[in-house]
Amino acid sequence: MAKQYMDMDTLKFLLYNVHDLQSVLDQKHFSDHDKDSVEIFLDSIKDFSDKELFPYIKEVDDQACYYKDGKIIVHPQVETMMKKGGELGVIAGIFDYEDGGMQLPGMVASASGFIMDAANNQLPGYTGLTLGAAELVAHFANDELKATYLQKMLDGIWGGTMCLTEPQAGSSLSDITTSATPTEDGHYKISGQKIFISAGDHEYCDNFVHLLLARIDGAPAGTKGISLFIVPKHRPENGGLTPNDVTTAGDFQKLGQRGYCTTHLMFGEKEDCQGYLVGEANKGLKYMFLMMNGARIGVGRGGTAIASAAYHASLEYAKERPQGRRLNNEGKKNVNDQQSLIIEHADVRRMLLLQKVVYEGALSLVLYASRCSDLSRSLQDEKEREKYQLLLEILTPMVKTYPSEMGAVAVSNGVQVLGGYGFTMEYILQQYHRDIRIFSLYEGTTGIQSLDLLGRKVTMQRGKAVELLAMEIMQTIQKAVSNDELRPYATQLGEKLQLVQKVLGHLTEYAKAGEYEVFTADANLFMEFFSNITIAWLWLDMAHHAKLGLIKGDKTYTEEFYESKVHAMKFFFKYELSKTTYLAEVLMNKETLTIQDSTQKVFV
Amino acid sequence: MAKQYMDMDTLKFLLYNVHDLQSVLDQKHFSDHDKDSVEIFLDSIKDFSDKELFPYIKEVDDQACYYKDGKIIVHPQVETMMKKGGELGVIAGIFDYEDGGMQLPGMVASASGFIMDAANNQLPGYTGLTLGAAELVAHFANDELKATYLQKMLDGIWGGTMCLTEPQAGSSLSDITTSATPTEDGHYKISGQKIFISAGDHEYCDNFVHLLLARIDGAPAGTKGISLFIVPKHRPENGGLTPNDVTTAGDFQKLGQRGYCTTHLMFGEKEDCQGYLVGEANKGLKYMFLMMNGARIGVGRGGTAIASAAYHASLEYAKERPQGRRLNNEGKKNVNDQQSLIIEHADVRRMLLLQKVVYEGALSLVLYASRCSDLSRSLQDEKEREKYQLLLEILTPMVKTYPSEMGAVAVSNGVQVLGGYGFTMEYILQQYHRDIRIFSLYEGTTGIQSLDLLGRKVTMQRGKAVELLAMEIMQTIQKAVSNDELRPYATQLGEKLQLVQKVLGHLTEYAKAGEYEVFTADANLFMEFFSNITIAWLWLDMAHHAKLGLIKGDKTYTEEFYESKVHAMKFFFKYELSKTTYLAEVLMNKETLTIQDSTQKVFV
Repeated sequence: MAKQYMDMDTLKFLLYNVHDLQSVLDQKHFSDHDKDSVEIFLDSIKDFSDKELFPYIKEVDDQACYYKDGKIIVHPQVETMMKKGGELGVIAGIFDYEDGGMQLPGMVASASGFIMDAANNQLPGYTGLTLGAAELVAHFANDELKATYLQKMLDGIWGGTMCLTEPQAGSSLSDITTSATPTEDGHYKISGQKIFISAGDHEYCDNFVHLLLARIDGAPAGTKGISLFIVPKHRPENGGLTPNDVTTAGDFQKLGQRGYCTTHLMFGEKEDCQGYLVGEANKGLKYMFLMMNGARIGVGRGGTAIASAAYHASLEYAKERPQGRRLNNEGKKNVNDQQSLIIEHADVRRMLLLQKVVYEGALSLVLYASRCSDLSRSLQDEKEREKYQLLLEILTPMVKTYPSEMGAVAVSNGVQVLGGYGFTMEYILQQYHRDIRIFSLYEGTTGIQSLDLLGRKVTMQRGKAVELLAMEIMQTIQKAVSNDELRPYATQLGEKLQLVQKVLGHLTEYAKAGEYEVFTADANLFMEFFSNITIAWLWLDMAHHAKLGLIKGDKTYTEEFYESKVHAMKFFFKYELSKTTYLAEVLMNKETLTIQDSTQKVFV
Repeated sequence: MAKQYMDMDTLKFLLYNVHDLQSVLDQKHFSDHDKDSVEIFLDSIKDFSDKELFPYIKEVDDQACYYKDGKIIVHPQVETMMKKGGELGVIAGIFDYEDGGMQLPGMVASASGFIMDAANNQLPGYTGLTLGAAELVAHFANDELKATYLQKMLDGIWGGTMCLTEPQAGSSLSDITTSATPTEDGHYKISGQKIFISAGDHEYCDNFVHLLLARIDGAPAGTKGISLFIVPKHRPENGGLTPNDVTTAGDFQKLGQRGYCTTHLMFGEKEDCQGYLVGEANKGLKYMFLMMNGARIGVGRGGTAIASAAYHASLEYAKERPQGRRLNNEGKKNVNDQQSLIIEHADVRRMLLLQKVVYEGALSLVLYASRCSDLSRSLQDEKEREKYQLLLEILTPMVKTYPSEMGAVAVSNGVQVLGGYGFTMEYILQQYHRDIRIFSLYEGTTGIQSLDLLGRKVTMQRGKAVELLAMEIMQTIQKAVSNDELRPYATQLGEKLQLVQKVLGHLTEYAKAGEYEVFTADANLFMEFFSNITIAWLWLDMAHHAKLGLIKGDKTYTEEFYESKVHAMKFFFKYELSKTTYLAEVLMNKETLTIQDSTQKVFV
């Protein structure tokens, strides 16, 4: 069993030095909090994670969730997660005081979520889903519904879920068919089935509050006819709970995250399932998407966290395992020398550094996106709020995708560090390899995120979001360029920004010509290209702040800590940022090989 | 359950048209075989795979091997594999007539192995290991040992294993400590333990013949003191079998290939374990490595086969699953249109084509390496034999690695095609994702293969092997350049050959300067770089032969089949070969960031 799953120094350095949490705490909305109270909160989360989450990471996998007689059996530690987590403020943290929350910045919630996810990527899913559902209730439900449901959710007494997917529709929400029929008392009868419902049922909550998308009878076709409902498992009536005709039909057995149940729910099989409209009719998808940025940042945070846990587990192994010998100057090994630790082999170091730059870069992205989210709702100046909202919009698909995709690559490198042992169930790496595989599928697959990034976010407001992000990047370049050691990297990043412009110039020609399929055909590669450059920027920024620490002689962290950040930045630029050369080449290659039309066949 | 796991047309096209099996069959050694007899053999293997292997792929995983009371329990279909497989010639195929074999070309064995592995990547492991062990017996054991062991192994009555790895040594064979003490009767007493022994024990073979590396008392340190022994589980004595003090201590539980046991064996705990020296003392590692090319081609073939099975399973899903809609010329979707099949989405096609080019390219590489192996031992002309031996040497680390590494990427794309369903146990993709993860660890990890490629194979005989491979590539370029459609790709490949020269020129400067650690520090990236270009060559060759088929009007395959190969080649060049631009950039970057020495620290 690995001893460590995350690095508190790096997290705090990113929070305070790099992403200036203080400037967020200075906003009126967060004014009751300060660095000390944040530290206390994060330390309590770390303590909780050490004691209640990390020790169970293997058990939640071994004792996977399963379905029996209409019930989902989950690991008993789910109860601790919901109740103790609820008490700690894991759910209520980011909610406003008037909703019973703690009004914590999203940056702090992301930091605490990262700690918990790294300790155990499954148990916090139960509180995470409840949080997401509660946000919809808090923002869009009427006072009566809020009074009935919200506090119990924030306390972790009742679980919450998001019910979107249906068997025939998958990612295509315009095709959902679950129906809502108005009743005489002003509510709705719900009928339909939902699949892939995370944390959809178990015995450790008295009730579940499903936030469900359905179509009111006669509603327009497509996404414009979708409404949002609260559908409780049990109706709170006369001071008690009455079954609401929501039944559990099964639990999907999965490759990973086997301790996080994925249920199949049936609504209204006996025609007695009541739903309560949230907000206005036919605006359900809009509401859902207003909350989606947070959910997607959450997924990215989870992928980052697994990559962190895998990095630390493989690092520990590499520091303890002797094997082979380093080459001498004749290119030979001396068999009479002691065996080297495997961390001394260049290729093992490369695999470890790769993991490090991916997970720390991803963590920086997650925290920066959370910062944008915080500022977009707490700054006084409306134009500034709008700026951060736009930054959040363009970052979100990348925050969702980079940690999921590159996190999986990083974890696989972690497996590789262990050699054959990495493939055995004795070590945790194989589990992380399974667990992280879902992250590029959750909350919109990589394909969908990439279409969102290129097809929607890049083009919105005539490219304003890209422009704003480029300006942020330029600011970092300008700071870094004044340092001799950082200058070459700053210059390189500047060239990459020009490359972005060139690539976008090429691609948007297709959009202008009405060739939308061609425009977005390689959106996945654009995602990889653009998020790589974004992470390079965040690394340069981290190196810049590390250099400041060294120059100022700031003793908060050791010199080695600061130097390690500069070194990691160089590694990212050499081994990762260089990929953008080839990605740009592909993106500007005019051959279309994946679109079938009258002029060409596509053979698969 | 998927219906198809491989494409017989592609296999035969590669065998006969692209890699000219006939020219191998024309050699005296193989003269009893012809195209008809090969077809009959391959068809019998396909039939066996359809009936006895593919139907059990999920079961061997669900009913994973386990250890109980000193025994390993495996799926009963292992018996069919050993016995029926043995009867079909799965083991005996490539052996000489005088050893009881069928004297089939390695190309045919690779083709049949590919079919079986694609149907079920685990059951053929049992015969595969027996084959490998039997090769050592056939080539290096004395007549008495051969008479005792060989035929029973070729028939699948007795299982064979390779016992190399020990807990304290891992990949570092110079550190093995299992001991062999001479006895008065001219044999040895064996004492030690071996781990990760594939197919090491089960109830469906009467006996196991372990080919074991050990150190004779007083032998020199390191690899020069390692000898090879036959150590049977039971000693054939007096017409019966006497237990030989080989005990089974456990079965490693694994991420994938759970139906293929991985045992922990104890030798000589009661000081009654006899071993029989194979060949000369202290030459064990040399013998082992003489047989290693075959074993490594076998691993590459297995990775290729899983990628083939995953491709066909995800292709089938993509052709049946409706979801979402294609964009119209205004970049919108019409919700009143029927849902599209997901194969119509450009990104899904990209993922399918990626899988296709990886697995078919890898298959071409496997067959070509087998061809080199066949010619290296059957050609009349010694210089020609040597040429193919050198080609085999330089190809082997790539054959081992490319299908393992890129195969895993391909399979992950297969999972992604299925969306959330890909992550569920209902579909086979998640299993392939688990199964293929071992292939970059088996038989020398990717790191070790890469050191072998750059540190040994590229430099041997002053770069002669690279030169020979480059000449083969040039020949294809010269043929392809005369065709208008292929010319741009041929030209591009020519440029990539020059890039190889440039990269090697840069890297070998380090070797000349005695900086061996720097020389090989990025060997992994060189592996990716060089094998990518090699696969591009094989695709150009495939496209060239497809074009020949079209031009000649050869009706063996459909026009669509030929065109699909040309299309896939273009896809490989656009999306994959382009990576070599960035890889060359990294390989020629002079920053060393992974080697710790007196001048620089390396922070992980």
